[in-house]
Amino acid sequence: MFFASDNTGPAHPKVLAALADANEGHVPSYGEDPLTARATALIREAFDAPDAAVHLVATGTAANALLLASLCQPWQTVFCSDVAHVHQDECAAPEFYTGGAKLTLVPHDGGKIRPDRLRARIEGEENRGVHGPQRGPVTVTQATEKGTIYTHAELAAITQLAHGFDLPVHMDGSRFANALAAGGGTPADMTWRAGIDALSFGGTKNGLLGVEAAVQFDPARSWEFELRRKRGAHLFSKHRFLAAQMVAYLEDGLWLQMAADANAACAALARGLSRHPDVRLLYPADANIVFAAWPRGLHRQLLAAGADYHLWEGELDDGPEDEPLTARLVCGFDTTDSEIDRFLALLAAG
Amino acid sequence: MFFASDNTGPAHPKVLAALADANEGHVPSYGEDPLTARATALIREAFDAPDAAVHLVATGTAANALLLASLCQPWQTVFCSDVAHVHQDECAAPEFYTGGAKLTLVPHDGGKIRPDRLRARIEGEENRGVHGPQRGPVTVTQATEKGTIYTHAELAAITQLAHGFDLPVHMDGSRFANALAAGGGTPADMTWRAGIDALSFGGTKNGLLGVEAAVQFDPARSWEFELRRKRGAHLFSKHRFLAAQMVAYLEDGLWLQMAADANAACAALARGLSRHPDVRLLYPADANIVFAAWPRGLHRQLLAAGADYHLWEGELDDGPEDEPLTARLVCGFDTTDSEIDRFLALLAAG
Amino acid sequence: MFFASDNTGPAHPKVLAALADANEGHVPSYGEDPLTARATALIREAFDAPDAAVHLVATGTAANALLLASLCQPWQTVFCSDVAHVHQDECAAPEFYTGGAKLTLVPHDGGKIRPDRLRARIEGEENRGVHGPQRGPVTVTQATEKGTIYTHAELAAITQLAHGFDLPVHMDGSRFANALAAGGGTPADMTWRAGIDALSFGGTKNGLLGVEAAVQFDPARSWEFELRRKRGAHLFSKHRFLAAQMVAYLEDGLWLQMAADANAACAALARGLSRHPDVRLLYPADANIVFAAWPRGLHRQLLAAGADYHLWEGELDDGPEDEPLTARLVCGFDTTDSEIDRFLALLAAG
Amino acid sequence: MFFASDNTGPAHPKVLAALADANEGHVPSYGEDPLTARATALIREAFDAPDAAVHLVATGTAANALLLASLCQPWQTVFCSDVAHVHQDECAAPEFYTGGAKLTLVPHDGGKIRPDRLRARIEGEENRGVHGPQRGPVTVTQATEKGTIYTHAELAAITQLAHGFDLPVHMDGSRFANALAAGGGTPADMTWRAGIDALSFGGTKNGLLGVEAAVQFDPARSWEFELRRKRGAHLFSKHRFLAAQMVAYLEDGLWLQMAADANAACAALARGLSRHPDVRLLYPADANIVFAAWPRGLHRQLLAAGADYHLWEGELDDGPEDEPLTARLVCGFDTTDSEIDRFLALLAAG
Repeated sequence: MFFASDNTGPAHPKVLAALADANEGHVPSYGEDPLTARATALIREAFDAPDAAVHLVATGTAANALLLASLCQPWQTVFCSDVAHVHQDECAAPEFYTGGAKLTLVPHDGGKIRPDRLRARIEGEENRGVHGPQRGPVTVTQATEKGTIYTHAELAAITQLAHGFDLPVHMDGSRFANALAAGGGTPADMTWRAGIDALSFGGTKNGLLGVEAAVQFDPARSWEFELRRKRGAHLFSKHRFLAAQMVAYLEDGLWLQMAADANAACAALARGLSRHPDVRLLYPADANIVFAAWPRGLHRQLLAAGADYHLWEGELDDGPEDEPLTARLVCGFDTTDSEIDRFLALLAAG
Repeated sequence: MFFASDNTGPAHPKVLAALADANEGHVPSYGEDPLTARATALIREAFDAPDAAVHLVATGTAANALLLASLCQPWQTVFCSDVAHVHQDECAAPEFYTGGAKLTLVPHDGGKIRPDRLRARIEGEENRGVHGPQRGPVTVTQATEKGTIYTHAELAAITQLAHGFDLPVHMDGSRFANALAAGGGTPADMTWRAGIDALSFGGTKNGLLGVEAAVQFDPARSWEFELRRKRGAHLFSKHRFLAAQMVAYLEDGLWLQMAADANAACAALARGLSRHPDVRLLYPADANIVFAAWPRGLHRQLLAAGADYHLWEGELDDGPEDEPLTARLVCGFDTTDSEIDRFLALLAAG
Repeated sequence: MFFASDNTGPAHPKVLAALADANEGHVPSYGEDPLTARATALIREAFDAPDAAVHLVATGTAANALLLASLCQPWQTVFCSDVAHVHQDECAAPEFYTGGAKLTLVPHDGGKIRPDRLRARIEGEENRGVHGPQRGPVTVTQATEKGTIYTHAELAAITQLAHGFDLPVHMDGSRFANALAAGGGTPADMTWRAGIDALSFGGTKNGLLGVEAAVQFDPARSWEFELRRKRGAHLFSKHRFLAAQMVAYLEDGLWLQMAADANAACAALARGLSRHPDVRLLYPADANIVFAAWPRGLHRQLLAAGADYHLWEGELDDGPEDEPLTARLVCGFDTTDSEIDRFLALLAAG
Repeated sequence: MFFASDNTGPAHPKVLAALADANEGHVPSYGEDPLTARATALIREAFDAPDAAVHLVATGTAANALLLASLCQPWQTVFCSDVAHVHQDECAAPEFYTGGAKLTLVPHDGGKIRPDRLRARIEGEENRGVHGPQRGPVTVTQATEKGTIYTHAELAAITQLAHGFDLPVHMDGSRFANALAAGGGTPADMTWRAGIDALSFGGTKNGLLGVEAAVQFDPARSWEFELRRKRGAHLFSKHRFLAAQMVAYLEDGLWLQMAADANAACAALARGLSRHPDVRLLYPADANIVFAAWPRGLHRQLLAAGADYHLWEGELDDGPEDEPLTARLVCGFDTTDSEIDRFLALLAAG
């Protein structure tokens, strides 16, 4: 009953096998090897973006911070939701990598940025001449931190708005595979065709050991990205070991299969939760995360029985037994039906 | 005949096996897993440093830059050799991570910093009050970029000098294992007992896929290091996959065995080179790197025959055939006798 | 009828005279001159703070950014009101000088930070371990950007709260003189006795050409401040010309006299405004700034008649004539009764 | 006998008078005032550069650091002489403002950068791909820190070389007036016609209280400069007081008259020094600075007699009486014949 995160589970066996396969002979270092070329080609193909600049890094925060730095001047401000990972969970890495840019927070609605709120925030900046920060890029998370996904139309509305102000749009796609598996369409539809300028294409949360691709659909700043990556100490010497993971991820559709499995598990979990009279779902469980609230007493029982998940709001030990506390539950490609069944059974018996 | 670098070869099979073994079940992320605790314990044990702060990162540049940033204020200057990796090969990562500190270059002598030259450079700074940069940490590379190693006494002379000015000393130990295997003594002798305050303990160049340990012998700034690591986007979520490599590295002395093998190969290579009348060795080949010069024509033949190494100074295509050009040759744990024999035979036949 | 700002008017004639007096002979540069020593002594005396570190700079933003940088690590967040000058009007200078810290915004109440809201924001940070930014200093503006002033008790409540979390408190006192002249008590009462750790002590908005003092009541980081000031290019070579202004400011109570005059003018203006049936005051005009709203048509008449002030919210040219628009009116030491009378007469006749 | 520096003396009385004149009435702040427009126009006219971007700051370090930051990416390196003010005397302000760029030192020859040495340094960088820093701007000081001046041809040789590598050239002209008064030609000849892209046009060392103009001959990055200036806290609110100084400086040729006076004084001083048998001049005293060496005993006598100057190398109290020690002597517009006569008489009598 492991629902704590999609980074606590194992990598997919095929990925490990690919690492072992890659561990043969001598190849050029620092990304000049054939596997890296293959990974780049596969991503360009998957996104129908033959000119895109593609660079691998090992953490999602690196992909986000480096891409944002490539889109943002130090005197600009990044527009993001108030629950964005780049704001809450990266210890100010974007501020560090941009050289001290600001983040302007847009209050989220189900994890998403709404165009009307974004417009208000954009118009609220750069109206004091040289005195205030200047408007910079917009970043959206897909799937969102709340487990919802933007439709293509929702994305297009945001990018259209941003582009109207000459602002580029970045997508934090640490769970892009989950969003795509759920939302349908092609990778291109969900990114550059919807106006996305740069994408952090996640792999770590979806079955890899630790690889993300930073994709710039406009390659004009590709070399700048490489310099920023090196300077940020994110260029791997034995680069084939990043590339091998990404190749295994994309070949044979493994990435979408894993994401679909995780989503299906989450859907089953959410369905079960929604049937319980004391459980309230906070957001549509569009992808592989579900937020739900139920009474403290029930949490106590589930956690005591070995369920592994995070309380998102509220303290287990402090308050009345019937007060609802919010939990976040995350499914991975390896979540099993029996885990879910056991969890739901415990819940029902609670 | 692969002598281009110690980052172009494969990882040791035991390391791959350790990754596979680690790929079981759910464990806490971000370094809270048992394997990370085990890696930390093994490093503390190896260095006889039970209180040392130990943190894993994936690149040597990250270890160097983060440790230097923890030792250096933005208005200080780092003293390093003029061929130091931190100066030449990190795209100014130390400047980035320190927030804009300077590097003051000490002309190297066989890759090493000599105390007299270091003293002159230290005394040359911080003599203009608030106007010039202030003195900051000293960093030495062990084994050096030229393939030599500092004796314990040489290290002690440097650290004594630095500490006399209240300056901490960092060691870039990307090839620490090679230095130790060659230089003898214990890890503690070569580090904190010789006055080293912080160590980048390399693994990547010596058989791992990509792991280095940042070791602070004084743990006072351990939490600061963690914040810097996270903010630099170097904290791995699936941290067990870094830890597993490091555990395999240290268990059963694999690290020293690999280093000893690489060193032995390099010694054989250097011996053979030194016997050739047209070859001149530039520095003592103390560890796993040899710099040597021989005529352009001979280079041409060797490279044409498939030898893989870097010309360090000079252009293959531009100059007289008998002009000596410098090559750098690097051996790894996987360098074979037959590679060396074949290379030396080609050289002899040239 | 000049109410646009307190930085559009002239400096006090005594200050110009002091500059001329200072322009004699050769003195050491970079703050080693007797006038600088005199300025420091006068500030220490005025604040009953014999050990305080005092450094002069030429802009309020420099004082704020340098002091905040001395109180804040790059991975921390500064707590300030959402209308704070450091947030809205410094083009992210605090982010630049701190090396990329965040600002966490506390919704203001009449320009002030309320302890309950501050507590909520403080508790909202540093609850995600290494993943989120760490709590950093609190900064308050006195007088506030809305023209109100904190009572000593209000300040003490904030500093007590902050200190309870081990957070230092900075005061942006660009209009400190106005606050003190209005609020009573001593400079010490309004700063360190109320728990303030560092103060930007303004002069520019109150009759100087351009000088602010950065005061650290705890001098432990005095040298660090000097290095930051130099590195930020804010150390004047001909430092006597900063010091001369500050000496003239403090001698004979000129600073408080000018502030009292400005406050009295503003009080008269606010009184007049409040008597007009179509005018609504937004905040108590505690110091030298008044925010008030009246119909667009009246604005049109006043501005056409030569009144000089800023519309703070709303567009003159776009909307119904009777829609109230907010103006900010600022008085200086040189605001005359006749200006105010004329303005109020025009308003009454509108 | 004040030869310590050109920043220890008074400002020119006309400059003080201009400040007093400017202290009338209300004008827009932050550089929107008529005097600032006038200063800009006068500089453009003086340099025959009608499109140049001109911005005032209060310190030379600010002009240098902001201009370099506008010409340099964080991953680049600035080429400067090893005695450049930007390297030795700005506490790493260029590193701070550029966001962590490097400085690559070119060994000076009489204070100047020689093209051959510059070429070697340029070719020594950016030859390691992404691993090393990239080549950035070249900066020269005119007059140099050693009191020499570049001829127009020497400047053209440097800028031609730099432009051949697509590198822009900045001139630190903190003593530009002295260089021009001595070197002849027009301001345009000595700057953009000789290939200079950006100039720190000094005023502080030549009779102002504290004003420098940052001149970008290509105005493409003018707005960026304004944002950097504001963010660096160098935008003055009461901007007229900077502008008034600069206007007085340029009107009626005051700047060149003051520089010519300082240069003439220095020439007389150097002439006298050169006639003394125990004095050796180190560099041609082209402008207003002379470096000379004479015996310790003579220094002792002169300093005891009240001469005010800096020993540049050597300690007064430690060594034999006849050992020559180097002094730096600087003349200002206000240096008098009698000072020089008295100094030379003391020297002769020594």
